[in-house]
Amino acid sequence: MNRASVKKVVVIGGGTGNFVILKGLKRYPLDLTAIVSMADDGGSTGILRDELGVLPPGDVRQCLVALSNSSRLMRSLMNYRFENGGLGGHSFGNLLLSALEKVTGSFEKAVEEAGKILYINGKVIPVTTHQVRLKMVLNNRKILEGEKEIYLSQEIDQGYKTIYLEPFPKVNPRVIEEIQNADLIVIGPGGLHTSLIPNLLVEGVCEALINTDAKKVYVVNLMNRRGQTTGFKTSHYIKELVRFIGRDIFDHILINVQKPAEELIEFYAEEGELVENDLDDERLIFADLLGRVNQETRHDLLKRNLIRHDSKKLAQELMNIVDHI
Amino acid sequence: MNRASVKKVVVIGGGTGNFVILKGLKRYPLDLTAIVSMADDGGSTGILRDELGVLPPGDVRQCLVALSNSSRLMRSLMNYRFENGGLGGHSFGNLLLSALEKVTGSFEKAVEEAGKILYINGKVIPVTTHQVRLKMVLNNRKILEGEKEIYLSQEIDQGYKTIYLEPFPKVNPRVIEEIQNADLIVIGPGGLHTSLIPNLLVEGVCEALINTDAKKVYVVNLMNRRGQTTGFKTSHYIKELVRFIGRDIFDHILINVQKPAEELIEFYAEEGELVENDLDDERLIFADLLGRVNQETRHDLLKRNLIRHDSKKLAQELMNIVDHI
Repeated sequence: MNRASVKKVVVIGGGTGNFVILKGLKRYPLDLTAIVSMADDGGSTGILRDELGVLPPGDVRQCLVALSNSSRLMRSLMNYRFENGGLGGHSFGNLLLSALEKVTGSFEKAVEEAGKILYINGKVIPVTTHQVRLKMVLNNRKILEGEKEIYLSQEIDQGYKTIYLEPFPKVNPRVIEEIQNADLIVIGPGGLHTSLIPNLLVEGVCEALINTDAKKVYVVNLMNRRGQTTGFKTSHYIKELVRFIGRDIFDHILINVQKPAEELIEFYAEEGELVENDLDDERLIFADLLGRVNQETRHDLLKRNLIRHDSKKLAQELMNIVDHI
Repeated sequence: MNRASVKKVVVIGGGTGNFVILKGLKRYPLDLTAIVSMADDGGSTGILRDELGVLPPGDVRQCLVALSNSSRLMRSLMNYRFENGGLGGHSFGNLLLSALEKVTGSFEKAVEEAGKILYINGKVIPVTTHQVRLKMVLNNRKILEGEKEIYLSQEIDQGYKTIYLEPFPKVNPRVIEEIQNADLIVIGPGGLHTSLIPNLLVEGVCEALINTDAKKVYVVNLMNRRGQTTGFKTSHYIKELVRFIGRDIFDHILINVQKPAEELIEFYAEEGELVENDLDDERLIFADLLGRVNQETRHDLLKRNLIRHDSKKLAQELMNIVDHI
């Protein structure tokens, strides 16, 4: 374990879950690292992968923006999406990462350079630098190809035989080093099959998670996703993660207790329902982790973002854990 | 005239001519400003204008890169062109300027922010911030619409009735201020009808050029462009500029005397021929201004770039003028 005065926190995920955690934690004096899934193939990211042969920039971009200390303008620029023509749908940050990958010849170098441009506080590390595709074989033998197809599937909760990355990728060696040297590792919140598990499918990641002396915390999602994790309770999430890791490694499980407004739950109902807790052990930490939604942003947001974690509250609870390491 | 110890040099043009001048001058302790034509509508720039409704970024991008003190990597990034798919042909720098224009709501603000990202030494100012289209009526009454069409025309040397911007644009007030306060104004090298004259067609620019106390130097092109300036000698270039400005304002005329290699001239022959000098007055400055072309870059370059000015030699001659102001 790293005994230096500045604690090392490693966040594992992808997508908006990572964003919320990193945005909160960057305000604290930490040695902060985001390990990012490379399975994304939807939207702008999917088009860039297909047309340019680059590695998926979308999740990395979100982490960079979360960790950025540059101006609000630069952060808006990174998330700006072109609206029309051949550029339509691409976020500028994705184009930056893809162009940097082409110019430098390396995705990792691209992430590093983009980090400099954005004055990030921390590190962003792709879990692998190989081109991989996420695949899932359902119990009905149907094969889902790609994260996007898995994300959109409505029948995963009917059970699946296996989920894997193709080809089976070697881990980025920096990832193992970061896990080894961490004081705290945060897994979640985020899409179980699309953001969390894809990290665990990379060679060596689970062994490193088992062998590190770091404390591990799992942040439980607020909402289930219909057709994917329908009816999941805390124990189901843990069980799924343990199925891949090979051992229950979690020292802490962070659970929100603040109920969202009834009208939001109703509004969200077609997307999914609240995650209920069914565990009762010493690892559970209950706290108000709920993000506020004001009337103004309500109209701008996708339904799935209406009920979300509050980055400040989440960071505060994680810092309580860090302070006791 | 500005009597401060740091001299103010204003470069007027567009395209690669500006690039060569600025790249050379940025090494000197000067107050440097590039005034850039807003008539470009070809290639990536044309697509962005049509699809996104932005102002033309291409010439501005070249000036920003020329003035940049950032890493070689950042400069390569700005000029990187995507090769495939919906992004194919777009240079990254153009996308940066267009996204910044969308996010800030102002092209000038976009140029300013891009200048910060690139650590530019100097200022880049669009001659107007109105959307304009360059138009030309030929002697045969044919109307050429847009800079690209004019640039590609092979019959301009048969004479034209008029060239104008539509709608007739108001000048960017900062341009008038820069011209008023300049110690030296450099016009050219560059496409006569496509890069230089479009600046003179903006309301108030010619009056400002006539009224300023600044010295004015014209840098004569090395090569004529077939179908556009075929057979032009120094006097023809000056006459064309004076036709728009309304007076012969030039204090100095800078002319290259170093002949390019015969094989390059032959290779270039279908594009155009060397500009000959037919003037003989005290304003002429003769110097070796020719850029070297090595075997390696020869294959990468367009023919029209094979015979070009050397930015260092050009800057040195211009500094000789500045030092005597």
